[in-house]
Amino acid sequence: MPAYATNMRMKFPIVALALEIVIIILFAVFVTYDDGKSHGHDPHSNATHHEEDAPLPNSLDVHVMIFIGFGFLMTFLKRYGFSSVGFNLLLAAFGLQWGLLTQGLWHLEDGKIKVTIFKIINADFSTATVLISFGAVLGKTSPVQLLIMTVLEISLFSINEHLVAQIFKANDVGASMIIHAFGAYFGLAVARVLYRPGLRNGHDNDGSVYHSDLFAMIGTVFLWMFWPSFNSAIADPGLTQLTAVINTYLSLAACVLSAYAISSLVEHKGKLDMVHIQNATLAGGVAVGTCADMAIGPYGAMLIGFVAGIISTVGFKYLTPILASNLGIQDTCGVHNLHGMPGILGGLAGIVAVALGKKEGGDAAMQAAALASSLGFALVGGAITGFIMKLPFWGQPPDQNCYDDSIYWEEEEHEESLAHADHSKNKAEV
Amino acid sequence: MPAYATNMRMKFPIVALALEIVIIILFAVFVTYDDGKSHGHDPHSNATHHEEDAPLPNSLDVHVMIFIGFGFLMTFLKRYGFSSVGFNLLLAAFGLQWGLLTQGLWHLEDGKIKVTIFKIINADFSTATVLISFGAVLGKTSPVQLLIMTVLEISLFSINEHLVAQIFKANDVGASMIIHAFGAYFGLAVARVLYRPGLRNGHDNDGSVYHSDLFAMIGTVFLWMFWPSFNSAIADPGLTQLTAVINTYLSLAACVLSAYAISSLVEHKGKLDMVHIQNATLAGGVAVGTCADMAIGPYGAMLIGFVAGIISTVGFKYLTPILASNLGIQDTCGVHNLHGMPGILGGLAGIVAVALGKKEGGDAAMQAAALASSLGFALVGGAITGFIMKLPFWGQPPDQNCYDDSIYWEEEEHEESLAHADHSKNKAEV
Amino acid sequence: MPAYATNMRMKFPIVALALEIVIIILFAVFVTYDDGKSHGHDPHSNATHHEEDAPLPNSLDVHVMIFIGFGFLMTFLKRYGFSSVGFNLLLAAFGLQWGLLTQGLWHLEDGKIKVTIFKIINADFSTATVLISFGAVLGKTSPVQLLIMTVLEISLFSINEHLVAQIFKANDVGASMIIHAFGAYFGLAVARVLYRPGLRNGHDNDGSVYHSDLFAMIGTVFLWMFWPSFNSAIADPGLTQLTAVINTYLSLAACVLSAYAISSLVEHKGKLDMVHIQNATLAGGVAVGTCADMAIGPYGAMLIGFVAGIISTVGFKYLTPILASNLGIQDTCGVHNLHGMPGILGGLAGIVAVALGKKEGGDAAMQAAALASSLGFALVGGAITGFIMKLPFWGQPPDQNCYDDSIYWEEEEHEESLAHADHSKNKAEV
Repeated sequence: MPAYATNMRMKFPIVALALEIVIIILFAVFVTYDDGKSHGHDPHSNATHHEEDAPLPNSLDVHVMIFIGFGFLMTFLKRYGFSSVGFNLLLAAFGLQWGLLTQGLWHLEDGKIKVTIFKIINADFSTATVLISFGAVLGKTSPVQLLIMTVLEISLFSINEHLVAQIFKANDVGASMIIHAFGAYFGLAVARVLYRPGLRNGHDNDGSVYHSDLFAMIGTVFLWMFWPSFNSAIADPGLTQLTAVINTYLSLAACVLSAYAISSLVEHKGKLDMVHIQNATLAGGVAVGTCADMAIGPYGAMLIGFVAGIISTVGFKYLTPILASNLGIQDTCGVHNLHGMPGILGGLAGIVAVALGKKEGGDAAMQAAALASSLGFALVGGAITGFIMKLPFWGQPPDQNCYDDSIYWEEEEHEESLAHADHSKNKAEV
Repeated sequence: MPAYATNMRMKFPIVALALEIVIIILFAVFVTYDDGKSHGHDPHSNATHHEEDAPLPNSLDVHVMIFIGFGFLMTFLKRYGFSSVGFNLLLAAFGLQWGLLTQGLWHLEDGKIKVTIFKIINADFSTATVLISFGAVLGKTSPVQLLIMTVLEISLFSINEHLVAQIFKANDVGASMIIHAFGAYFGLAVARVLYRPGLRNGHDNDGSVYHSDLFAMIGTVFLWMFWPSFNSAIADPGLTQLTAVINTYLSLAACVLSAYAISSLVEHKGKLDMVHIQNATLAGGVAVGTCADMAIGPYGAMLIGFVAGIISTVGFKYLTPILASNLGIQDTCGVHNLHGMPGILGGLAGIVAVALGKKEGGDAAMQAAALASSLGFALVGGAITGFIMKLPFWGQPPDQNCYDDSIYWEEEEHEESLAHADHSKNKAEV
Repeated sequence: MPAYATNMRMKFPIVALALEIVIIILFAVFVTYDDGKSHGHDPHSNATHHEEDAPLPNSLDVHVMIFIGFGFLMTFLKRYGFSSVGFNLLLAAFGLQWGLLTQGLWHLEDGKIKVTIFKIINADFSTATVLISFGAVLGKTSPVQLLIMTVLEISLFSINEHLVAQIFKANDVGASMIIHAFGAYFGLAVARVLYRPGLRNGHDNDGSVYHSDLFAMIGTVFLWMFWPSFNSAIADPGLTQLTAVINTYLSLAACVLSAYAISSLVEHKGKLDMVHIQNATLAGGVAVGTCADMAIGPYGAMLIGFVAGIISTVGFKYLTPILASNLGIQDTCGVHNLHGMPGILGGLAGIVAVALGKKEGGDAAMQAAALASSLGFALVGGAITGFIMKLPFWGQPPDQNCYDDSIYWEEEEHEESLAHADHSKNKAEV
């Protein structure tokens, strides 16, 4: 690929401005304020009062997960922190506007999309799928490619979500299936299509340094703390919402113990691995998502989290290398281990829980259909999106510039930047 | 300037302790708990119930913006992180006490200031002006100078705020005029008076390193996330507050796209510049402030944010160097681009929106008066404050020690610290 | 001690998995969801409605303090950041499960522990004691030792808390005594038993570097911001809770000024010391804890904070070295200065305030009994726990590996990591 292809000079500004202008026009035509006359996603619900009062704190909690949580979680790469947190902000800011539109089209009132806190939370949710997929292709895609992925992925997400929630009427309050499994397998399908043989033997910049791992822990801990809000944000207010908070909280807590234990068990001399700690400790939040508002019992939630922590850690250690070498799926952040497998586990747990009658009015077959639909849309949609992203004029970076901010970001003080070792030994050694 | 002048040994402790003791005495005389009998800023309002219930989460959101947002946003300088986040904490902790007093004096009940959550939010607001001005003089002032600036600026802010809100009865719910424009032009006036010819050609430490830019992004993202709370914190509860949340959220989202696009357009090879991303992505929150609770329409908010992102980025690229070289205004953080111009844009948008009848009971002439008053107080007050800060006994650092923590902060492990090669000298020595 | 003793390979996974499995079984037997029929800690209270509505935001605020606040506060050590934030997450995730059980046993309903938001907040509180003690032994203990400490400390905390709250009926809303003093003196007793003569003359890694101090400031600022939620989380809703918020907010603000002033006063050339700023600025939150919901007046709260800031800073400067050299108490984070002395100050202030009639129904003798009980449980319990932790098979690190992540954490890129240049090219070029 010729070097000039990565020059974003005209491409990126034109795409970004055009998208934003189109969106503003669509908002002018379709979007209006909520007039307080109707609320929520379920037109049959009378819960107007509760929904009006409660969700604001939760709304901001989810916001924190999207912008700080996902953004900093991906700063673990030593030379890709600007892109991680910067493109995360770009994609999320764009995605939530696009998500408001694509989700709102299913819920028009008088031909208009009325913006409520509930719809804002759902728009944040829709961007989460993109940020998960971003993790799979981190370091290997241009911002133009990522904007295209955002447009397509959120559109497909909105269709699948409508299918799952309105047609199948399946339960997925914490979105194990429609966000986590969907986002992960979408991203893995994209990564497969964008397979780079040149990175088979790794890349100098595909790793962390001490402080980049600490920045990533900011993301981990914020995701961990606010996950109960994520899984309960759209639960029915009252005791059901409280159940979702408690189940998520306990699942995550149990998951931490199993993730630490297995990390120590599989690593050299019983040491812990930051990759596991940054990611697998969160798998309990993913896996309990579908069942979060069901009466699975506190210990049931903990069992799910416990198993998720094990699966996720084992996946990072043994499965990710196999996916890369045997299937050509180069999954930078290991989203398969944090979102993919735990998402499927969550979907399966949901089927079992509904079959056991843990959710009033639930239907196990519809839960299974929801899982299948989410995976199907993800894999097919991701593959198609991957082919579109592979077109040669979106500025995809050449192999040697992967995982490197300097291809997309100004470095004003170049020498400094190259030298900024954090440590004195450095000097001594030199 | 003789070196000993920067020794803070007696000066700083005496000033800090004296200020705190005076404040405690004033609190003992004037301040009491809220007894729940009256609430809010508007004595004609009956909204006691709502105001009592709602604002606590918002209160803490604004707190997060003040202490984490502003504090970390300024850590971008490679050797001034301790001062950025540390002086930010000092000034904010002092400022909110001082602000409770100076704002409370206008709202005495039985000769007492009754502390409510509403007044605490307003005190946080008053400190925001100081932290904005701090950005203009960052790296070039001693903590004693900064405490003096805090005393004077918050006093003037409280007068101007009273004028705008009570006399002009102008709308400025998100404070584009009374906080952002005021704080920016106050700081620029101070910076003009403290002009340092010795820094005309730049300074080795006036720049970032890789990880200092990532620390700054913590500030950016927290400001971005919680800005809807800032602009809606004192809005009328209910749908009006919701409108302020939605307008701010959408304005910020549109602003991100235009800031990224223009950054790429104006930079070398279409690359992005961290300075723009850290700052201009927030201009939409500033600019939509005055109109946040008005019925400008979701697309109206987005247009304001879109324009603000462009103006701010262009300002960083082209205007800041001109201000420094031609007008002698050395604006360290570029507050003119993030708070100054977008603040004026917000004030102008407010005039237009009120003239178009977007706010019941609004008066465009009064909006204009509010903007003029805010700018006038800022420029005159800032200039006078600058002359007081310029007095030779406040420990202002000499040019060569600007932008350097080591003049005010112990470095316990001196060799380490010098060597932990976030530092350019390191390389030179090697 | 033979080197292999620090190999965590089997020990840590077995202990962690066994603890989690036992806990899940106990949860299966004892723990159920809240059914909304009873709420709160006080069976005589009728405040069900309020407690149901209000605490969720506070709950998450306390969560943020536990996981981000404590976790990052301890990242100040240059080579112990992974362990600080990582073991903090491990201990907190385990501790909150254990705390739900040990605290819940005192409040069984129909033989079951019903999980409420209130109980979750209290479980977060119980983990705070462990994290405070962790600060005293930071860098000198293995994760297995720390898990053992967690089991024992939370069990003793739950007994002491029951004694103080239910038997003595003492007031300690912000837990100056039962969390801060208890956690500090427990940790100091453990540290005394684990005294290491080999560290008398310091250790190369027992210090900070520039960016590790900035990471620690993330912890400081989050603790500072959310402390009003900590001290008010279990206060009676309404004006009493508001009083707790205001008192804490003002105490902290006054404390910042005195901590900065004294830091400058006692240090070389009037400079500030990051250790003081990171810690002593928080002492006001600790010291006002017991009185937070009492009518001590805003200026009373400020006086407490003002004094706490002085005591804490002076303690760091002069007392910590004496404790280490004369009493054999090596207090890594100086928890004696942040939690110990300010906690006692808080307890004493509570006695005085209750004696002065600032709290309806309070009894000064019972306050004194609560303080004595907390200190007694801490010192005796900590000493016993220390002896158990000293048993030679828990993998305690040898002196030369103290304060060093590499004994417990994989470092995937070893050379990189040692040099931790942020950039591979760097080394190559040099």
